[in-house]
Amino acid sequence: MRRVVAILTDFGTKDGFVGAMKGVILSINPEVQLVDISHEVEPFNVLEGALLLKAHFKYFPKGTIFLCVVDPGVGSERLPVVIEGGGYFFVGPMNGIFDLAIKDTRCKPKAHRIENFTLPRVNQTFHGRDVFAPAAGWLSRGVPLEKVGSPVEYSFSLNWVEPEDRGEEIWGRVLYFDRFGNCITNIPCGEYSVAYFRGQELPVISYFLKGERGKPALLCGSFGFMELVVPLGNAREVLKVSLGEVVGVKKL
Amino acid sequence: MRRVVAILTDFGTKDGFVGAMKGVILSINPEVQLVDISHEVEPFNVLEGALLLKAHFKYFPKGTIFLCVVDPGVGSERLPVVIEGGGYFFVGPMNGIFDLAIKDTRCKPKAHRIENFTLPRVNQTFHGRDVFAPAAGWLSRGVPLEKVGSPVEYSFSLNWVEPEDRGEEIWGRVLYFDRFGNCITNIPCGEYSVAYFRGQELPVISYFLKGERGKPALLCGSFGFMELVVPLGNAREVLKVSLGEVVGVKKL
Amino acid sequence: MRRVVAILTDFGTKDGFVGAMKGVILSINPEVQLVDISHEVEPFNVLEGALLLKAHFKYFPKGTIFLCVVDPGVGSERLPVVIEGGGYFFVGPMNGIFDLAIKDTRCKPKAHRIENFTLPRVNQTFHGRDVFAPAAGWLSRGVPLEKVGSPVEYSFSLNWVEPEDRGEEIWGRVLYFDRFGNCITNIPCGEYSVAYFRGQELPVISYFLKGERGKPALLCGSFGFMELVVPLGNAREVLKVSLGEVVGVKKL
Repeated sequence: MRRVVAILTDFGTKDGFVGAMKGVILSINPEVQLVDISHEVEPFNVLEGALLLKAHFKYFPKGTIFLCVVDPGVGSERLPVVIEGGGYFFVGPMNGIFDLAIKDTRCKPKAHRIENFTLPRVNQTFHGRDVFAPAAGWLSRGVPLEKVGSPVEYSFSLNWVEPEDRGEEIWGRVLYFDRFGNCITNIPCGEYSVAYFRGQELPVISYFLKGERGKPALLCGSFGFMELVVPLGNAREVLKVSLGEVVGVKKL
Repeated sequence: MRRVVAILTDFGTKDGFVGAMKGVILSINPEVQLVDISHEVEPFNVLEGALLLKAHFKYFPKGTIFLCVVDPGVGSERLPVVIEGGGYFFVGPMNGIFDLAIKDTRCKPKAHRIENFTLPRVNQTFHGRDVFAPAAGWLSRGVPLEKVGSPVEYSFSLNWVEPEDRGEEIWGRVLYFDRFGNCITNIPCGEYSVAYFRGQELPVISYFLKGERGKPALLCGSFGFMELVVPLGNAREVLKVSLGEVVGVKKL
Repeated sequence: MRRVVAILTDFGTKDGFVGAMKGVILSINPEVQLVDISHEVEPFNVLEGALLLKAHFKYFPKGTIFLCVVDPGVGSERLPVVIEGGGYFFVGPMNGIFDLAIKDTRCKPKAHRIENFTLPRVNQTFHGRDVFAPAAGWLSRGVPLEKVGSPVEYSFSLNWVEPEDRGEEIWGRVLYFDRFGNCITNIPCGEYSVAYFRGQELPVISYFLKGERGKPALLCGSFGFMELVVPLGNAREVLKVSLGEVVGVKKL
């Protein structure tokens, strides 16, 4: 069965950990399509992982299995789960990493604890390889959730703050910086007339080159959130933006 | 159809942008072979992207689709195109990124503007995912250029300087540093007796260990250009080479 | 034939060298499954490459071809080889990079010098693409070692030091730091009661959260060696550990 397994971790790309996970998956399903989303999530930063998954998952074909391991609690009592929701599958620790994507599917997720298929003599430090990769491999072969383990209630646990809706305005915060220095906020894309940042009004633009070169502006970015940008510049560096800084928008 | 889509961008590997592009392609063609060339082109550095594409494209099987997105003008009026040339396909912005590879094919390229297949509600900031990836996906399924959009004239626009041929000598410049600190010039590989750098003569060697350990030399590198190297050392660091520095060779 | 080719190099991911190798392999076998183990081995550090291969190879399906190129002697007289051992194949320079994996297979390896299938007009600086990738590609199509070249004796040449077994204790050294700052030693996983580091006793724990947060400990890590760790911390940074530092364990 030629399903996609898309992998998101904080493992980095040097140590070969992701390669070992892929080896395990290919041992189970030689026909799988393996795709990397990112392995450079900041170590143990579950919010960052959740944000990247939410940004990208809906561009994958239905049936894709998202294998996501950002897992500060590896080996502790957080539940290892497989989840079905919105036509997608999710495999990893139930620590909030799937919360934003699951919300976006607007479906009630069906979750099962991973009890079967784990590698024999599981090394307690690498559940990505020994617990989660086998589960993803078997799901990619069409094995139903029921065979992986017993049903559990999905519980949302991400440390996530919605932006504040003040009627005519929405106020949010900078959550993430991308490679280009764009500052992704938690304000969803929408129709806004103007933005506020550090007591100043900034234009809301439809794309980079609509803005004036070098002048800060807000636009709807590829994460599905409003982003503070500097056209042809690096907003993070130019403005010395910090994580958590406050940004506002006025509704149209 | 099991075609290869080889991807070259300046998107980095952290933000998941390349993953989203792959998701789009796999939604169109589950059988595709996806290969990364590089995603660490310096942001907006079209010359660097063009150089990496030229260095490597001819090692891919005929029919490969090169999806190349280094696009400072995203959302502006540079043309989004699909190109056929030398048995290969190229997809991306017509901003010079394909120029060196197209020249190497010694074929007249056939270019079509991308007008069809784009994702609905295109986010103006991410043409890689919404415009270029779908075009690459459909080409990989064997769709002809004509179906993607109307024909346009290919125009060369890269800021590229040929080395200076002074009869017995060729004088060029350092264009790029690779991971090992080798300094790639714009002087094509050829038969040379000796090299000139900062007023000194350097030997031209056939491979690294032909050189004296630690002694600068010139050799024909894997980009198809002459490279300034220090055998078992890092030429860039040892010699403190700058981009644009002048290098000469004497013809045999 | 849908075999896996798993690639391990010190080429980095920016310059596109690995992409060119994959292009060569796909030109030979369009059906291959390509997997990256790591391309961020420290340049020319054969020990690091050997360690990563040993850590991960056994998680890949039998028949996998490991294409490993960390090759300070590129173009010199070290032998380019294909190897069969323990149901796996290995392709690269016979410079020690395969030693630890081969030892782990506990099989006598069968090695053949690469004499055939190399790309015409081989560039002396890039054997990864011109010599090793074609050999891996043909092996992935089921071509037997005999067709690649004549048999040679496998010789171990890695600069590897076994830990010292003093009866009740084993004394080893820190060999490698992973992304999380865990300090991988050369002491094999086993049953130990207590660890010694810088004159102090450290607990031996079964997994991270068994340790006290922030307190150094030893555990059996995912490389199959004992690792010096700081639960939920970065041992390398917290303790300022150096490569080669001495660690001991007491047998149970």
